[in-house]
Amino acid sequence: MKSHPLFEKLRIFAPGPTPVPESVLAQMSLPPLHHRTEEFGRILDRTRKNLSWLFQTDQRAYVLACSGTGAMEATIVNLCAAGDEVVVINGGKFGERWTKLAQRYGLKVHELKFDWGEAADPAQVVAALKQNPNVRAVLMQASETSTGAYHPVEQIAKAVHETSDALVCVDAITALGVSPLPMDKWGLDVVISGSQKAFMLPPGLAFMSLSERANQARKRTSIPNFYFSLAEEDKVFDKAQTAWTPAVSLIVGLDMVLARMREAGLEAIFNHHARLAEGTRHGVTAMGLSLLAKKSPSASVTSVLLPAGMTNGDKIISHLRDRYGMTVADGQDHYKGKMFRIAHLGYYDELDMLTVLSAVELTLDKLGIPVKLGQGVGAAARYFRESENQV
Amino acid sequence: MKSHPLFEKLRIFAPGPTPVPESVLAQMSLPPLHHRTEEFGRILDRTRKNLSWLFQTDQRAYVLACSGTGAMEATIVNLCAAGDEVVVINGGKFGERWTKLAQRYGLKVHELKFDWGEAADPAQVVAALKQNPNVRAVLMQASETSTGAYHPVEQIAKAVHETSDALVCVDAITALGVSPLPMDKWGLDVVISGSQKAFMLPPGLAFMSLSERANQARKRTSIPNFYFSLAEEDKVFDKAQTAWTPAVSLIVGLDMVLARMREAGLEAIFNHHARLAEGTRHGVTAMGLSLLAKKSPSASVTSVLLPAGMTNGDKIISHLRDRYGMTVADGQDHYKGKMFRIAHLGYYDELDMLTVLSAVELTLDKLGIPVKLGQGVGAAARYFRESENQV
Repeated sequence: MKSHPLFEKLRIFAPGPTPVPESVLAQMSLPPLHHRTEEFGRILDRTRKNLSWLFQTDQRAYVLACSGTGAMEATIVNLCAAGDEVVVINGGKFGERWTKLAQRYGLKVHELKFDWGEAADPAQVVAALKQNPNVRAVLMQASETSTGAYHPVEQIAKAVHETSDALVCVDAITALGVSPLPMDKWGLDVVISGSQKAFMLPPGLAFMSLSERANQARKRTSIPNFYFSLAEEDKVFDKAQTAWTPAVSLIVGLDMVLARMREAGLEAIFNHHARLAEGTRHGVTAMGLSLLAKKSPSASVTSVLLPAGMTNGDKIISHLRDRYGMTVADGQDHYKGKMFRIAHLGYYDELDMLTVLSAVELTLDKLGIPVKLGQGVGAAARYFRESENQV
Repeated sequence: MKSHPLFEKLRIFAPGPTPVPESVLAQMSLPPLHHRTEEFGRILDRTRKNLSWLFQTDQRAYVLACSGTGAMEATIVNLCAAGDEVVVINGGKFGERWTKLAQRYGLKVHELKFDWGEAADPAQVVAALKQNPNVRAVLMQASETSTGAYHPVEQIAKAVHETSDALVCVDAITALGVSPLPMDKWGLDVVISGSQKAFMLPPGLAFMSLSERANQARKRTSIPNFYFSLAEEDKVFDKAQTAWTPAVSLIVGLDMVLARMREAGLEAIFNHHARLAEGTRHGVTAMGLSLLAKKSPSASVTSVLLPAGMTNGDKIISHLRDRYGMTVADGQDHYKGKMFRIAHLGYYDELDMLTVLSAVELTLDKLGIPVKLGQGVGAAARYFRESENQV
């Protein structure tokens, strides 16, 4: 029995789009600025600088009017040429996307597959690079959103640089602004992200930054490109402009969020997400559920396996949606109907996680799965209480 | 330790203003219509008719640009003359307001005081009317917001009409749209309400409707009035206009909410509020707290007494505010610092109540008051589960 639409709320706990603060929504609902004005130029310039701060890099941060996949494509078409060899770390749906993208543009892909939920093994990356000394780039995720696993980015980057000249290209779409990912310090050559994740914005913007090595690599012949041409972006970058029309309202929102992020500081942001993730894991395991990514879980999203014997996991998801207006994500591909994913990146706090846990408890109970109401919520609350001084 | 402003949310659980649905906020943020247009006239006409439906009356419903106290004043100045005698049922801060208002305009007040948290006793009203046969009106609340008690409106109205010709004037500011209050059926002569309560709107509008008897009474000499003159309203009522400039944006929001209320139906609305209130009471008592209004609790707001021995209740309220961005109301007057009040009227659902209960548990724990995390939330969740088919 659902609430009447009169009382219905929307509660998004999918790993993007994430909730947008009301004050940011209000600002973005003002009439769009013209993008060739000085006022907008100042905003763009400030957001780019604040992005470089968040990327922890001295390099330029580009703001593109596209979704995250656009920045993945920009990585390929600006840095590679047809026939180039790449290693792809494929531990889920988004790893697979790197493979598809690279193959579409005629690259030769050496794919390292990891079981869903497992983190990539740096030794296997090293082995692949030794077997294929001409590999131009290693393409990977930081947080694999489809499984909730977090790959050991730092160790992999180190291993790659010790073994070869390959560029380390990291899809940090659900990792940037969530977990430590110091681009320059770790020697990451490309890092990309997207607005609808930790940035607390609607979809429509992607961000990317390239190391000096990656910028050098752009001078080689590359795949023909236009909309995603970083050379075109560079022509007007210092004039505080973008090559093509920027998504100005989203950038105005980005400016607000980045200012608040900077005010909060990286450590507070990372600790906040780590606590929400750990509390969520405490909650779901206390209700007797298990986690897909046990060893190396992401702080962005928690993948929860269905109770033993349950095959129609879509019922949990549809009950949360229809009864509580709550969106959690289904599993993808072979995990479809076999798990659900709870996001905790961006504009969430402890009470939000207690709310989603309450709703999951009531849903399991409704579907006849044994659960003691209050048990998962209580366990999460105890974790939040005990970890409070870590913030 | 509070969340950084980056992650801070506002969670209003005070008995007004209550949360406003995002779709309504968006509609109200459009440029204001001009109030002399046909378009606005149609909206005003429709909202007045839908208000009469909600009041359960065949009479006109007035929409005034003022807060609820304005409609209380309109009641006095349109129906009474200086020197008139009235009976006031004073069981809290808002009962007291009737007394102050009546005295300000030179009425002679026979005040019936009831302990805070207690419901009024119809027998005492009858006794007062028998002792004072010239009483012109009985002024009362339905839900006394300061205590969370619900007065027996139906029984009092019946008793008054059996005893005298006094008009029954009901401040239903936090009762209309929450609990059954059929104006015509119960013989209520004046009913008033306000936008920032069950109507899910910002403050700024008050509503009132008068019985045929009350309209007759207006023909007597009354207190001089202008802004609150119902005679002025009546002159233009059928032209779908208001006497003075209407608060058009709020009325546009009201139109949306009333359409949804009508679509939901009265029974669903009343059951919804009754369940939220009962679930909240289950939750707070399961954490070992007690209720101020035990015998006749309002479905609008729950007054929770502090744990035994605790004298500085403001700490609970300030911790909820500072740590969780959550507003609950303090006690008023002699209950200030001795209780807190949780609202559940308007745009709330079960998960909202579980959220506020989680926050209260964590707050009590933080303040060193023994509570088992998950106990109150679990008890409320069990009640919600078990009462689900009542919806």
